[in-house]
Amino acid sequence: MTAMHGLSAFPITPTDDDGNPIASELAGLIDRLDRAGVDSIGILGSTGGYAYLTPDQRMRAADIALDAAQVPVIVGVGALRSDVSARLARHAADAGAAGLLLAPMSYTPLTEDEVFGHFQTVAGASDLPICIYNNPSTTHFTFSPALLARLATLPQVTAVKMPLPADGDFAGQIAGLRADLPQGFAIGYSGDWGCADALLAGADAWFSVAAGLWPEQSLMLARAAMAGDRALTAEWQDRFQPLWDLFMAHGSLRVVFAAARIMGLTTALPPRPLLPLSHDLTPHIKAAITALEG
Amino acid sequence: MTAMHGLSAFPITPTDDDGNPIASELAGLIDRLDRAGVDSIGILGSTGGYAYLTPDQRMRAADIALDAAQVPVIVGVGALRSDVSARLARHAADAGAAGLLLAPMSYTPLTEDEVFGHFQTVAGASDLPICIYNNPSTTHFTFSPALLARLATLPQVTAVKMPLPADGDFAGQIAGLRADLPQGFAIGYSGDWGCADALLAGADAWFSVAAGLWPEQSLMLARAAMAGDRALTAEWQDRFQPLWDLFMAHGSLRVVFAAARIMGLTTALPPRPLLPLSHDLTPHIKAAITALEG
Repeated sequence: MTAMHGLSAFPITPTDDDGNPIASELAGLIDRLDRAGVDSIGILGSTGGYAYLTPDQRMRAADIALDAAQVPVIVGVGALRSDVSARLARHAADAGAAGLLLAPMSYTPLTEDEVFGHFQTVAGASDLPICIYNNPSTTHFTFSPALLARLATLPQVTAVKMPLPADGDFAGQIAGLRADLPQGFAIGYSGDWGCADALLAGADAWFSVAAGLWPEQSLMLARAAMAGDRALTAEWQDRFQPLWDLFMAHGSLRVVFAAARIMGLTTALPPRPLLPLSHDLTPHIKAAITALEG
Repeated sequence: MTAMHGLSAFPITPTDDDGNPIASELAGLIDRLDRAGVDSIGILGSTGGYAYLTPDQRMRAADIALDAAQVPVIVGVGALRSDVSARLARHAADAGAAGLLLAPMSYTPLTEDEVFGHFQTVAGASDLPICIYNNPSTTHFTFSPALLARLATLPQVTAVKMPLPADGDFAGQIAGLRADLPQGFAIGYSGDWGCADALLAGADAWFSVAAGLWPEQSLMLARAAMAGDRALTAEWQDRFQPLWDLFMAHGSLRVVFAAARIMGLTTALPPRPLLPLSHDLTPHIKAAITALEG
């Protein structure tokens, strides 16, 4: 198993109003994940708000997380500019990261050659393994199977984080990807509500927003699904369902910020223009927490 | 006529490899537009690469352009964070801008309330008129007619830059918008190849990439269309057609960077990961230039 296999927990990055990480809160979140024994921690992913922080703020957050964690840490290094991503990759390697998560953030729509060049630049900046972040809803770039296969020819590119397939056919999608990708290449999923099904269908990893706050419960779900225990998986899915409903209705980032405040783990708000969830939703969030924590 | 009416020319921002503006080249581009007498200059729009520059680099580019221009200058202040957009708006106002262009850049998909709050924050940062930048292909946010009308209740929000309507029905779209928006609210378009039709149908403005390099020719086309002279409009559209074909095939930003290099106006390349166009296209770009410059 590599740092790109199993359950990867993606916490929020608590910051002040200017985007500066709040060290004590971030270290506290990391410590909870570490003690729960998640397979890896993914910092500065979409949930970690990387897109809203300056390179300096991101390097500071990486330093805090890498100081606090014993388990492998994957650092998100996506940026609109290739040179910024490369700089963040060098810093992550120097600071002791186990791997990189690279999203092809885009403003001007990118061509496949441009995305390949971007990954090549970042691969050249360190020796760390790179996970391709495939999430068109935030990056606005859609990877073709051919481009994934081309990227996998770069020795450092060893994993992909996939969005949930629109048709729900995980087994078919995973078989198609495995046919195109080198042996040992890790195929993981995000979109928490669908990830147990992905693991049941043979996916290698769950890149999880929920695990950033509920690592024990997410580990129970992940282990049940990876072991093929459908009954236990269904039981845990039922306990997570109120949370999944909130994620689908309001976006997981807004929900976990609100939950972390309710749980007393942070004082931070999402970065504006993102708005905190309405107080009307607090009872629903509390109910989702209770369903999980019992 | 306000700074939001007529032909607004959007030049590239020549930068070095780190994104620092090349002052002499940017001032040279601005000076060409100024001497041609465009109705306004729009700096740091999508063509101006605002999304790829730091706030400091953007303020530097605004200073250079505002020093060089006599005609009104509209400054793009879009950013993923509301505080950054507000800071850029204050700087633009202090530096003498005539207006702001505000794109709802997004990473986490934004709600309507979040976009409204973002505009409110920027409107509170200066007294400058604000043009709503409506371009889902880059910002990944789609404005509903109801949100446009709500934004128009902010006194500073006086214009909108629309994408070309998918069905080509400019007259219908403009009539629908005018019904919802206050009198005098400026309705402009981008997507250069369709903008003459927009002006013929009564649009108030053309936010033009081509005018950033060919201001005289763009003025001829804009004036013909605004005067309702369909024959002359068609003549000019024919001369622009090879350029429009390149814009549609390769993205206007990549094409104008290549053209500006061929014309000796810059040494800069687009910011990576964007790649310069293949040299194979040089003859086609030269032909498009010749068609315009005769």
